[in-house]
Amino acid sequence: MKISVYRKAHFNAAHRLHNEAWSEEENKRVFGKCNLPNYHGHNYVLEVKLTGPIDPETGYVMDLGKLKDIMNKEVIERYDHRNLNLDVPEFRELNPTVENIATIIYKRLRSQIDEHMGLGIRLYETERNFVDIEE
Amino acid sequence: MKISVYRKAHFNAAHRLHNEAWSEEENKRVFGKCNLPNYHGHNYVLEVKLTGPIDPETGYVMDLGKLKDIMNKEVIERYDHRNLNLDVPEFRELNPTVENIATIIYKRLRSQIDEHMGLGIRLYETERNFVDIEE
Amino acid sequence: MKISVYRKAHFNAAHRLHNEAWSEEENKRVFGKCNLPNYHGHNYVLEVKLTGPIDPETGYVMDLGKLKDIMNKEVIERYDHRNLNLDVPEFRELNPTVENIATIIYKRLRSQIDEHMGLGIRLYETERNFVDIEE
Amino acid sequence: MKISVYRKAHFNAAHRLHNEAWSEEENKRVFGKCNLPNYHGHNYVLEVKLTGPIDPETGYVMDLGKLKDIMNKEVIERYDHRNLNLDVPEFRELNPTVENIATIIYKRLRSQIDEHMGLGIRLYETERNFVDIEE
Amino acid sequence: MKISVYRKAHFNAAHRLHNEAWSEEENKRVFGKCNLPNYHGHNYVLEVKLTGPIDPETGYVMDLGKLKDIMNKEVIERYDHRNLNLDVPEFRELNPTVENIATIIYKRLRSQIDEHMGLGIRLYETERNFVDIEE
Amino acid sequence: MKISVYRKAHFNAAHRLHNEAWSEEENKRVFGKCNLPNYHGHNYVLEVKLTGPIDPETGYVMDLGKLKDIMNKEVIERYDHRNLNLDVPEFRELNPTVENIATIIYKRLRSQIDEHMGLGIRLYETERNFVDIEE
Repeated sequence: MKISVYRKAHFNAAHRLHNEAWSEEENKRVFGKCNLPNYHGHNYVLEVKLTGPIDPETGYVMDLGKLKDIMNKEVIERYDHRNLNLDVPEFRELNPTVENIATIIYKRLRSQIDEHMGLGIRLYETERNFVDIEE
Repeated sequence: MKISVYRKAHFNAAHRLHNEAWSEEENKRVFGKCNLPNYHGHNYVLEVKLTGPIDPETGYVMDLGKLKDIMNKEVIERYDHRNLNLDVPEFRELNPTVENIATIIYKRLRSQIDEHMGLGIRLYETERNFVDIEE
Repeated sequence: MKISVYRKAHFNAAHRLHNEAWSEEENKRVFGKCNLPNYHGHNYVLEVKLTGPIDPETGYVMDLGKLKDIMNKEVIERYDHRNLNLDVPEFRELNPTVENIATIIYKRLRSQIDEHMGLGIRLYETERNFVDIEE
Repeated sequence: MKISVYRKAHFNAAHRLHNEAWSEEENKRVFGKCNLPNYHGHNYVLEVKLTGPIDPETGYVMDLGKLKDIMNKEVIERYDHRNLNLDVPEFRELNPTVENIATIIYKRLRSQIDEHMGLGIRLYETERNFVDIEE
Repeated sequence: MKISVYRKAHFNAAHRLHNEAWSEEENKRVFGKCNLPNYHGHNYVLEVKLTGPIDPETGYVMDLGKLKDIMNKEVIERYDHRNLNLDVPEFRELNPTVENIATIIYKRLRSQIDEHMGLGIRLYETERNFVDIEE
Repeated sequence: MKISVYRKAHFNAAHRLHNEAWSEEENKRVFGKCNLPNYHGHNYVLEVKLTGPIDPETGYVMDLGKLKDIMNKEVIERYDHRNLNLDVPEFRELNPTVENIATIIYKRLRSQIDEHMGLGIRLYETERNFVDIEE
């Protein structure tokens, strides 16, 4: 029996999909509207999942207030109301697809979360398109 | 007794809030994060409401397939995956707040909908912030 | 200042759109997929709105448990898991568009609700298509 | 043409329904499970609606950040994680039905909002039971 | 670390539950309202999950536009606005429970998706009843 | 290939977080607003997941009507409109965090469900905070 706790947050950001190594035609063919030059944006919704034992004293897997602080510091304050391509160093050279954004978020959070605890990420770009990362 | 039909659509766009007539400091003070220079974005959700009699032959107030086509032509194809400030002529000089975007959408749809029919608009910028327009 | 209370319920039903007075071609042209002969269906969601004064003894506009009973008797027990065209007498000759279904529900409930109380109906056929009736 | 802006917030509170002037039997008969002595609770969701002209300089009906501050001060900080019957003075003698809670919230906010602006309230006790107040 | 992408779609269909090998009484006893003879229906929501490596050139696990096309061709165009029992060959002899519908969808999609990629299915019959299939 | 069926239910309850072995200061420091003495409450949403083979006669993993009855008897009738700390014996000595509530629900349901069937639980305290239990 394995228990996990989840916490949701959200950020609103602009992005465009683009591979610098490709021609404009190739970018347009592969990424379509997502490649339009002046950016578009999304209300991203982030769910973070932590798996571990329940602390018998608190009844918590982890204090979700502390998880919220980590999520704010590592993700929300850095991405919210930003242009992911222009303002966020990790996407200067990495195409900000929802897969790549989730991967970076996973790595940033993994470094801040106790290594004995399992970590999962779900990131919604829209209600219809989303990704998750499981260990 | 008054009956209305509703149809939903969505578009993903970038924008920033900015008043060209103001100093940078004033813009920052009033619009905060929404004024950041490189744009952010949203998954906008648009609900259109038409009020009118039920056609006794079809049982429709209006064929929602036709309403969908009008919404696509007037709004979705023009705003989706665009930067509202840079790509959409009506926001070159008009600050794209959710109030102003809804007003422009209302006017664009009003010109395409039978004048005997009532028209309403609801526009969600996020699940927490939205506007509506009623006649 | 006007206060209204709302109660939600749902029913799952089959239907098709069809005008008996028209040719097959005309039905197909106007109603498209909704006219396919063997029916399709929806998870309908019904919201009922009652407007009236707050009873100072109970603090209720109306006991929502009693409203629920009326909704069950007049709507849910008659429409849930039914074929609206074949099983429900009021749609034998009336095309079960969401507009017509809402109108019939409004009339059925109106006859059961105190005439001094305002009544409104919202009926969702899908999350994207819905109607409301206001007095 | 009338434009309104909306802002959502939420609070988690305990309550029970009870009329001190009635016998235990009468309370139980009228309020059922909602009268159980040790309280139950809800995740209340509050939507506030402001109606007024768009300020041509800001493009806002009202700065929703300022509205959020008023909602926090008048409602959220006072009701969140509280027992409405025991901790909130306005419900010491007033039965905290969703109708009465919404009425009190309306009055508290009305006193803080510019009198030229229209104010509406929607309060969800659950997804299935809610009220609204319109002027 | 394992990454999955998800894509949602929906179809509206009629069905009834029925086992041809059983008596009417047995069908009624086991399937209740779901066995009523003239069909009922649902707004089905389908989530498809693909698990695989991120392509370093595109930043995609799979182009969700291509997944959407496969979902449309294999599922939506065949089931939407249909009667599953009468119109869809795979349910002529197979009872269209949500479990069986999901299994068939899984098999249809599995044959169209790269075998090195993991595939999962979630199918909602209503918001309250749903299934998933994991490999 | 593994198939699971899900069923949702909900209950509205009061609770507070408190460790009897700690000082008031320690309780306040760790649990913050959740420790306030007069309780607060939530609309809890429970999702139960059963994993097992599809019965070839019914097309069901399990009759969800029977699962609903078990969920009602073991959880809803015992927790709904109750104060978890005061009214529910299992939380007299166990702090009713969402982790502990889910664990108890899991154990109660596990004892009622065929041992060959997998069981999972998801419990939402709010839309933003939730837990799941997997075997």
